[in-house]
Amino acid sequence: MSDRDSRHKASMQKLKTRVDEKVASATEQRGLLLINTGNGKGKTTAAWGTVTRALGYDYKVGVVQFIKGLWECGERNRLEDDANLQVAIMATGFTWDTQNREEDTRACQEVWQEAARMLSDPNVYLVVLDEITYMLKFGYLDIETVKQALENRPHEQTVIITGRNAHRDLVAMADTVTEMQEVRHAFNNGIQARRGIDY
Amino acid sequence: MSDRDSRHKASMQKLKTRVDEKVASATEQRGLLLINTGNGKGKTTAAWGTVTRALGYDYKVGVVQFIKGLWECGERNRLEDDANLQVAIMATGFTWDTQNREEDTRACQEVWQEAARMLSDPNVYLVVLDEITYMLKFGYLDIETVKQALENRPHEQTVIITGRNAHRDLVAMADTVTEMQEVRHAFNNGIQARRGIDY
Repeated sequence: MSDRDSRHKASMQKLKTRVDEKVASATEQRGLLLINTGNGKGKTTAAWGTVTRALGYDYKVGVVQFIKGLWECGERNRLEDDANLQVAIMATGFTWDTQNREEDTRACQEVWQEAARMLSDPNVYLVVLDEITYMLKFGYLDIETVKQALENRPHEQTVIITGRNAHRDLVAMADTVTEMQEVRHAFNNGIQARRGIDY
Repeated sequence: MSDRDSRHKASMQKLKTRVDEKVASATEQRGLLLINTGNGKGKTTAAWGTVTRALGYDYKVGVVQFIKGLWECGERNRLEDDANLQVAIMATGFTWDTQNREEDTRACQEVWQEAARMLSDPNVYLVVLDEITYMLKFGYLDIETVKQALENRPHEQTVIITGRNAHRDLVAMADTVTEMQEVRHAFNNGIQARRGIDY
Protein backbone atom coordinates (compact mmCIF):
# COMPACT_ATOMS: atom_id res chain seq x y z
CA MET A 1 0.00 0.00 0.00
CA SER A 2 1.37 3.44 -0.92
CA ASP A 3 2.04 6.08 1.73
CA ARG A 4 -0.88 8.12 0.57
CA ASP A 5 -3.18 5.11 0.71
CA SER A 6 -2.04 4.22 4.24
CA ARG A 7 -2.52 7.76 5.46
CA HIS A 8 -5.99 7.77 3.95
CA LYS A 9 -6.83 4.47 5.69
CA ALA A 10 -5.60 5.72 9.07
CA SER A 11 -7.52 8.96 8.82
CA MET A 12 -10.70 7.13 7.75
CA GLN A 13 -10.37 4.73 10.69
CA LYS A 14 -10.18 7.68 13.06
CA LEU A 15 -13.18 9.28 11.40
CA LYS A 16 -15.14 6.02 11.65
CA THR A 17 -14.58 5.88 15.41
CA ARG A 18 -15.94 9.40 15.77
CA VAL A 19 -18.95 8.67 13.55
CA ASP A 20 -19.73 5.43 15.42
CA GLU A 21 -19.58 7.18 18.78
CA LYS A 22 -21.99 9.83 17.57
CA VAL A 23 -24.41 7.27 16.16
CA ALA A 24 -24.29 5.29 19.42
CA SER A 25 -25.05 8.34 21.55
CA ALA A 26 -28.10 9.31 19.48
CA THR A 27 -30.80 7.22 21.15
CA GLU A 28 -33.87 9.44 21.36
CA GLN A 29 -36.60 8.74 18.82
CA ARG A 30 -39.36 11.25 18.07
CA GLY A 31 -40.64 13.68 15.50
CA LEU A 32 -38.48 16.73 14.91
CA LEU A 33 -38.99 20.42 14.45
CA LEU A 34 -36.80 21.60 11.59
CA ILE A 35 -36.33 25.19 10.45
CA ASN A 36 -34.91 26.17 7.05
CA THR A 37 -34.19 29.88 7.23
CA GLY A 38 -31.72 32.46 5.88
CA ASN A 39 -31.65 34.60 2.74
CA GLY A 40 -30.36 31.91 0.38
CA LYS A 41 -31.93 29.50 -2.08
CA GLY A 42 -33.04 26.08 -0.91
CA LYS A 43 -35.34 26.56 2.06
CA THR A 44 -38.57 25.50 0.36
CA THR A 45 -36.72 23.24 -2.06
CA ALA A 46 -35.19 21.21 0.76
CA ALA A 47 -38.62 20.95 2.38
CA TRP A 48 -40.03 19.47 -0.85
CA GLY A 49 -37.05 17.14 -1.01
CA THR A 50 -38.00 15.87 2.44
CA VAL A 51 -41.62 15.54 1.34
CA THR A 52 -40.51 13.35 -1.57
CA ARG A 53 -38.35 11.34 0.82
CA ALA A 54 -41.16 10.73 3.32
CA LEU A 55 -43.59 9.79 0.53
CA GLY A 56 -40.97 7.30 -0.63
CA TYR A 57 -41.64 5.34 2.56
CA ASP A 58 -45.44 5.75 2.21
CA TYR A 59 -45.76 8.17 5.10
CA LYS A 60 -48.62 10.67 5.07
CA VAL A 61 -47.48 14.24 4.44
CA GLY A 62 -49.22 17.61 4.71
CA VAL A 63 -47.90 20.75 3.04
CA VAL A 64 -49.28 24.20 3.78
CA GLN A 65 -48.13 26.85 1.33
CA PHE A 66 -48.41 30.32 2.73
CA ILE A 67 -47.91 33.15 0.18
CA LYS A 68 -46.61 31.38 -2.91
CA GLY A 69 -49.73 29.44 -3.79
CA LEU A 70 -50.42 31.23 -7.06
CA TRP A 71 -47.13 30.21 -8.62
CA GLU A 72 -46.70 27.17 -10.72
CA CYS A 73 -44.95 24.55 -8.66
CA GLY A 74 -43.20 21.60 -10.30
CA GLU A 75 -42.94 19.63 -7.08
CA ARG A 76 -46.67 19.88 -6.49
CA ASN A 77 -47.30 18.85 -10.11
CA ARG A 78 -45.05 15.82 -9.74
CA LEU A 79 -46.43 14.61 -6.42
CA GLU A 80 -50.07 15.74 -6.31
CA ASP A 81 -51.42 12.39 -7.53
CA ASP A 82 -49.94 10.78 -4.40
CA ALA A 83 -52.78 9.71 -2.11
CA ASN A 84 -50.51 10.24 0.91
CA LEU A 85 -49.98 13.94 0.17
CA GLN A 86 -52.36 16.72 1.12
CA VAL A 87 -51.60 20.31 0.15
CA ALA A 88 -53.33 23.43 1.48
CA ILE A 89 -52.64 26.67 -0.35
CA MET A 90 -53.17 30.25 0.75
CA ALA A 91 -53.15 31.22 -2.93
CA THR A 92 -53.26 34.97 -2.47
CA GLY A 93 -49.95 35.57 -4.22
CA PHE A 94 -47.07 37.59 -2.84
CA THR A 95 -47.80 40.22 -0.21
CA TRP A 96 -46.25 42.84 -2.49
CA ASP A 97 -48.82 41.98 -5.14
CA THR A 98 -51.90 41.92 -2.95
CA GLN A 99 -50.84 44.94 -0.86
CA ASN A 100 -53.82 44.26 1.35
CA ARG A 101 -53.20 43.43 4.98
CA GLU A 102 -56.78 42.76 5.92
CA GLU A 103 -57.52 40.32 3.13
CA ASP A 104 -54.18 38.57 3.48
CA THR A 105 -54.88 38.08 7.18
CA ARG A 106 -58.23 36.51 6.43
CA ALA A 107 -56.71 34.17 3.81
CA CYS A 108 -53.89 33.26 6.19
CA GLN A 109 -56.26 32.45 9.07
CA GLU A 110 -58.26 30.24 6.76
CA VAL A 111 -55.30 28.18 5.57
CA TRP A 112 -54.00 28.03 9.15
CA GLN A 113 -57.13 26.02 10.05
CA GLU A 114 -55.87 23.38 7.62
CA ALA A 115 -52.42 23.51 9.19
CA ALA A 116 -53.90 23.17 12.70
CA ARG A 117 -55.85 20.11 11.57
CA MET A 118 -52.70 18.46 10.17
CA LEU A 119 -50.73 19.34 13.32
CA SER A 120 -53.26 17.47 15.46
CA ASP A 121 -53.49 14.37 13.25
CA PRO A 122 -51.24 11.51 14.45
CA ASN A 123 -51.49 9.89 11.01
CA VAL A 124 -49.59 12.77 9.43
CA TYR A 125 -45.88 11.95 9.70
CA LEU A 126 -44.57 15.22 8.22
CA VAL A 127 -46.08 18.70 8.06
CA VAL A 128 -44.45 21.50 6.05
CA LEU A 129 -45.38 25.06 7.00
CA ASP A 130 -43.90 26.73 3.95
CA GLU A 131 -43.13 30.46 4.34
CA ILE A 132 -45.06 30.71 7.59
CA THR A 133 -42.34 33.01 8.99
CA TYR A 134 -43.72 35.90 6.91
CA MET A 135 -47.21 35.35 8.30
CA LEU A 136 -45.80 35.86 11.78
CA LYS A 137 -43.69 38.81 10.74
CA PHE A 138 -46.65 40.63 9.17
CA GLY A 139 -48.86 39.76 12.12
CA TYR A 140 -51.31 37.73 10.02
CA LEU A 141 -50.86 34.91 12.50
CA ASP A 142 -50.19 34.90 16.23
CA ILE A 143 -46.93 33.33 17.42
CA GLU A 144 -48.59 31.87 20.55
CA THR A 145 -51.16 30.02 18.43
CA VAL A 146 -48.41 28.50 16.32
CA LYS A 147 -46.25 27.57 19.33
CA GLN A 148 -49.15 25.87 21.05
CA ALA A 149 -50.04 23.84 17.96
CA LEU A 150 -46.41 22.76 17.60
CA GLU A 151 -46.06 21.84 21.28
CA ASN A 152 -49.23 19.78 21.28
CA ARG A 153 -48.57 17.94 18.05
CA PRO A 154 -48.28 14.12 17.96
CA HIS A 155 -45.00 12.76 19.35
CA GLU A 156 -43.93 11.10 16.09
CA GLN A 157 -44.77 14.04 13.84
CA THR A 158 -42.01 16.05 12.20
CA VAL A 159 -42.61 19.67 11.18
CA ILE A 160 -40.56 21.75 8.76
CA ILE A 161 -40.85 25.51 8.89
CA THR A 162 -39.42 27.57 6.04
CA GLY A 163 -38.86 31.27 5.45
CA ARG A 164 -36.49 34.11 6.23
CA ASN A 165 -36.26 35.68 9.67
CA ALA A 166 -37.68 32.80 11.67
CA HIS A 167 -39.23 33.99 14.94
CA ARG A 168 -36.75 33.54 17.82
CA ASP A 169 -39.27 31.50 19.82
CA LEU A 170 -39.50 29.01 16.96
CA VAL A 171 -35.71 28.86 16.63
CA ALA A 172 -35.51 28.19 20.38
CA MET A 173 -37.99 25.30 20.08
CA ALA A 174 -36.43 23.70 17.00
CA ASP A 175 -34.34 20.52 16.98
CA THR A 176 -32.52 21.37 13.78
CA VAL A 177 -31.99 24.84 12.36
CA THR A 178 -30.28 25.41 9.03
CA GLU A 179 -29.43 28.85 7.75
CA MET A 180 -29.36 28.87 3.95
CA GLN A 181 -26.98 31.71 3.18
CA GLU A 182 -26.75 33.29 -0.21
CA VAL A 183 -23.14 33.40 -1.36
CA ARG A 184 -24.17 34.24 -4.91
CA HIS A 185 -27.50 34.18 -6.77
CA ALA A 186 -27.88 33.99 -10.55
CA PHE A 187 -30.99 36.20 -10.45
CA ASN A 188 -28.89 39.10 -9.15
CA ASN A 189 -26.62 38.74 -12.15
CA GLY A 190 -29.38 39.17 -14.70
CA ILE A 191 -30.25 35.50 -15.20
CA GLN A 192 -33.96 34.69 -15.36
CA ALA A 193 -35.67 32.39 -12.90
CA ARG A 194 -35.82 29.02 -14.61
CA ARG A 195 -38.77 26.68 -15.03
CA GLY A 196 -38.19 23.34 -13.36
CA ILE A 197 -35.23 24.72 -11.44
CA ASP A 198 -36.37 27.87 -9.62
CA TYR A 199 -40.10 27.13 -9.59
CA MET B 1 -58.22 51.79 6.22
CA SER B 2 -56.38 51.63 9.57
CA ASP B 3 -52.94 53.23 10.01
CA ARG B 4 -51.30 49.83 10.19
CA ASP B 5 -53.05 48.71 7.00
CA SER B 6 -51.99 51.86 5.13
CA ARG B 7 -48.39 51.54 6.25
CA HIS B 8 -48.43 47.92 5.12
CA LYS B 9 -49.81 48.93 1.72
CA ALA B 10 -47.20 51.65 1.23
CA SER B 11 -44.33 49.37 2.20
CA MET B 12 -45.62 46.61 -0.10
CA GLN B 13 -45.91 49.06 -3.00
CA LYS B 14 -42.29 50.05 -2.50
CA LEU B 15 -41.26 46.40 -2.32
CA LYS B 16 -43.22 45.65 -5.49
CA THR B 17 -41.31 48.33 -7.40
CA ARG B 18 -38.00 46.79 -6.30
CA VAL B 19 -39.12 43.27 -7.20
CA ASP B 20 -40.42 44.38 -10.61
CA GLU B 21 -37.15 46.16 -11.39
CA LYS B 22 -35.18 43.06 -10.51
CA VAL B 23 -37.40 40.80 -12.60
CA ALA B 24 -37.13 43.19 -15.57
CA SER B 25 -33.34 43.27 -15.40
CA ALA B 26 -33.03 39.47 -15.39
CA THR B 27 -33.06 38.74 -19.11
CA GLU B 28 -30.46 36.04 -19.67
CA GLN B 29 -31.79 32.52 -20.20
CA ARG B 30 -29.59 29.47 -19.89
CA GLY B 31 -28.82 26.48 -17.75
CA LEU B 32 -27.29 27.25 -14.36
CA LEU B 33 -24.53 25.87 -12.22
CA LEU B 34 -25.77 25.68 -8.63
CA ILE B 35 -23.73 24.69 -5.60
CA ASN B 36 -25.23 23.62 -2.28
CA THR B 37 -22.40 23.60 0.22
CA GLY B 38 -21.76 24.25 3.93
CA ASN B 39 -21.89 22.05 7.03
CA GLY B 40 -25.67 22.17 7.51
CA LYS B 41 -28.58 19.93 6.61
CA GLY B 42 -30.33 20.40 3.27
CA LYS B 43 -27.68 20.26 0.54
CA THR B 44 -28.71 16.93 -0.96
CA THR B 45 -32.31 17.37 0.15
CA ALA B 46 -32.64 20.62 -1.80
CA ALA B 47 -31.10 18.93 -4.83
CA TRP B 48 -33.76 16.20 -4.66
CA GLY B 49 -36.41 18.89 -4.25
CA THR B 50 -35.20 20.42 -7.52
CA VAL B 51 -35.20 16.97 -9.15
CA THR B 52 -38.85 16.55 -8.14
CA ARG B 53 -39.59 20.03 -9.46
CA ALA B 54 -37.96 19.41 -12.86
CA LEU B 55 -39.70 16.03 -13.20
CA GLY B 56 -42.95 17.88 -12.51
CA TYR B 57 -42.50 19.60 -15.89
CA ASP B 58 -41.48 16.34 -17.61
CA TYR B 59 -37.84 17.33 -18.00
CA LYS B 60 -35.21 14.61 -18.14
CA VAL B 61 -33.04 14.46 -15.03
CA GLY B 62 -29.82 12.62 -14.19
CA VAL B 63 -28.63 12.08 -10.62
CA VAL B 64 -25.16 10.79 -9.79
CA GLN B 65 -24.77 9.74 -6.17
CA PHE B 66 -21.18 9.69 -5.06
CA ILE B 67 -20.57 8.06 -1.64
CA LYS B 68 -24.04 7.61 -0.20
CA GLY B 69 -25.31 4.99 -2.62
CA LEU B 70 -25.57 2.17 -0.08
CA TRP B 71 -28.06 3.98 2.08
CA GLU B 72 -31.76 3.66 1.72
CA CYS B 73 -33.05 6.77 0.01
CA GLY B 74 -36.72 7.72 0.21
CA GLU B 75 -36.51 10.19 -2.67
CA ARG B 76 -35.06 7.58 -4.98
CA ASN B 77 -37.78 5.14 -3.88
CA ARG B 78 -40.49 7.68 -4.59
CA LEU B 79 -39.20 8.79 -7.99
CA GLU B 80 -37.37 5.79 -9.46
CA ASP B 81 -40.37 4.65 -11.52
CA ASP B 82 -40.19 7.96 -13.42
CA ALA B 83 -39.04 7.29 -16.97
CA ASN B 84 -37.46 10.76 -17.09
CA LEU B 85 -35.10 10.03 -14.21
CA GLN B 86 -31.80 8.19 -14.45
CA VAL B 87 -29.73 7.54 -11.35
CA ALA B 88 -26.09 6.41 -11.24
CA ILE B 89 -24.78 5.25 -7.90
CA MET B 90 -21.21 4.80 -6.71
CA ALA B 91 -22.56 2.48 -4.03
CA THR B 92 -19.33 1.95 -2.12
CA GLY B 93 -20.66 3.39 1.11
CA PHE B 94 -18.99 6.07 3.16
CA THR B 95 -15.26 6.56 2.81
CA TRP B 96 -14.87 5.93 6.53
CA ASP B 97 -16.46 2.52 6.07
CA THR B 98 -14.50 1.40 3.02
CA GLN B 99 -11.18 2.90 4.22
CA ASN B 100 -9.73 2.00 0.87
CA ARG B 101 -8.46 4.80 -1.32
CA GLU B 102 -7.59 2.67 -4.30
CA GLU B 103 -10.93 0.90 -4.60
CA ASP B 104 -12.88 4.07 -3.90
CA THR B 105 -10.98 5.80 -6.70
CA ARG B 106 -11.84 3.03 -9.13
CA ALA B 107 -15.53 3.11 -8.15
CA CYS B 108 -15.56 6.90 -8.43
CA GLN B 109 -13.99 6.90 -11.88
CA GLU B 110 -16.55 4.38 -13.02
CA VAL B 111 -19.56 6.39 -11.88
CA TRP B 112 -17.94 9.55 -13.27
CA GLN B 113 -18.25 8.02 -16.74
CA GLU B 114 -22.01 8.05 -16.22
CA ALA B 115 -21.84 11.66 -15.08
CA ALA B 116 -19.78 12.65 -18.12
CA ARG B 117 -22.33 11.03 -20.39
CA MET B 118 -25.19 12.96 -18.78
CA LEU B 119 -23.18 16.20 -18.93
CA SER B 120 -22.81 15.84 -22.69
CA ASP B 121 -26.45 14.94 -23.40
CA PRO B 122 -28.55 17.96 -24.47
CA ASN B 123 -31.73 16.03 -23.63
CA VAL B 124 -30.82 16.03 -19.95
CA TYR B 125 -32.22 19.25 -18.45
CA LEU B 126 -30.83 18.80 -14.95
CA VAL B 127 -27.82 16.85 -13.65
CA VAL B 128 -27.16 16.43 -9.93
CA LEU B 129 -23.60 15.59 -8.89
CA ASP B 130 -24.39 14.63 -5.33
CA GLU B 131 -21.43 14.76 -2.90
CA ILE B 132 -18.92 15.11 -5.70
CA THR B 133 -16.98 17.65 -3.60
CA TYR B 134 -15.57 14.80 -1.48
CA MET B 135 -14.34 12.99 -4.60
CA LEU B 136 -12.29 16.07 -5.48
CA LYS B 137 -11.11 16.54 -1.91
CA PHE B 138 -9.87 12.95 -1.64
CA GLY B 139 -8.32 13.13 -5.10
CA TYR B 140 -10.50 10.34 -6.49
CA LEU B 141 -11.41 12.69 -9.31
CA ASP B 142 -9.45 15.42 -11.06
CA ILE B 143 -10.76 18.99 -10.81
CA GLU B 144 -9.73 19.81 -14.39
CA THR B 145 -11.77 16.89 -15.75
CA VAL B 146 -14.83 18.08 -13.88
CA LYS B 147 -14.38 21.72 -14.90
CA GLN B 148 -14.04 20.79 -18.55
CA ALA B 149 -17.15 18.65 -18.52
CA LEU B 150 -19.10 21.48 -16.86
CA GLU B 151 -17.82 24.11 -19.28
CA ASN B 152 -18.65 22.03 -22.34
CA ARG B 153 -22.09 20.97 -21.20
CA PRO B 154 -25.21 21.87 -23.24
CA HIS B 155 -26.28 25.52 -22.96
CA GLU B 156 -29.71 24.74 -21.46
CA GLN B 157 -28.48 22.19 -18.96
CA THR B 158 -28.52 23.00 -15.25
CA VAL B 159 -26.11 21.24 -12.87
CA ILE B 160 -26.36 21.03 -9.10
CA ILE B 161 -23.27 20.17 -7.10
CA THR B 162 -23.63 19.24 -3.45
CA GLY B 163 -21.20 18.62 -0.62
CA ARG B 164 -19.10 20.41 1.98
CA ASN B 165 -15.96 22.31 1.09
CA ALA B 166 -16.74 22.92 -2.56
CA HIS B 167 -13.54 23.44 -4.60
CA ARG B 168 -12.85 27.15 -5.08
CA ASP B 169 -12.71 26.77 -8.88
CA LEU B 170 -16.24 25.36 -8.86
CA VAL B 171 -17.45 28.15 -6.59
CA ALA B 172 -15.90 30.65 -9.00
CA MET B 173 -17.73 29.08 -11.97
CA ALA B 174 -21.12 28.78 -10.26
CA ASP B 175 -24.13 31.00 -10.94
CA THR B 176 -25.74 30.38 -7.57
CA VAL B 177 -23.97 29.28 -4.41
CA THR B 178 -25.82 28.56 -1.21
CA GLU B 179 -24.08 27.82 2.04
CA MET B 180 -26.24 25.63 4.25
CA GLN B 181 -25.03 26.50 7.73
CA GLU B 182 -25.79 24.38 10.73
CA VAL B 183 -27.24 26.51 13.50
CA ARG B 184 -28.35 23.44 15.44
CA HIS B 185 -28.67 19.75 14.58
CA ALA B 186 -30.88 17.25 16.38
CA PHE B 187 -28.34 14.46 15.88
CA ASN B 188 -25.84 16.33 18.05
CA ASN B 189 -28.40 16.39 20.85
CA GLY B 190 -28.84 12.65 20.98
CA ILE B 191 -31.79 12.35 18.61
CA GLN B 192 -31.63 9.50 16.10
CA ALA B 193 -31.61 10.05 12.36
CA ARG B 194 -35.17 9.56 11.24
CA ARG B 195 -36.53 7.44 8.42
CA GLY B 196 -38.33 9.51 5.78
CA ILE B 197 -36.87 12.71 7.23
CA ASP B 198 -33.08 12.31 7.42
CA TYR B 199 -32.71 9.54 4.84
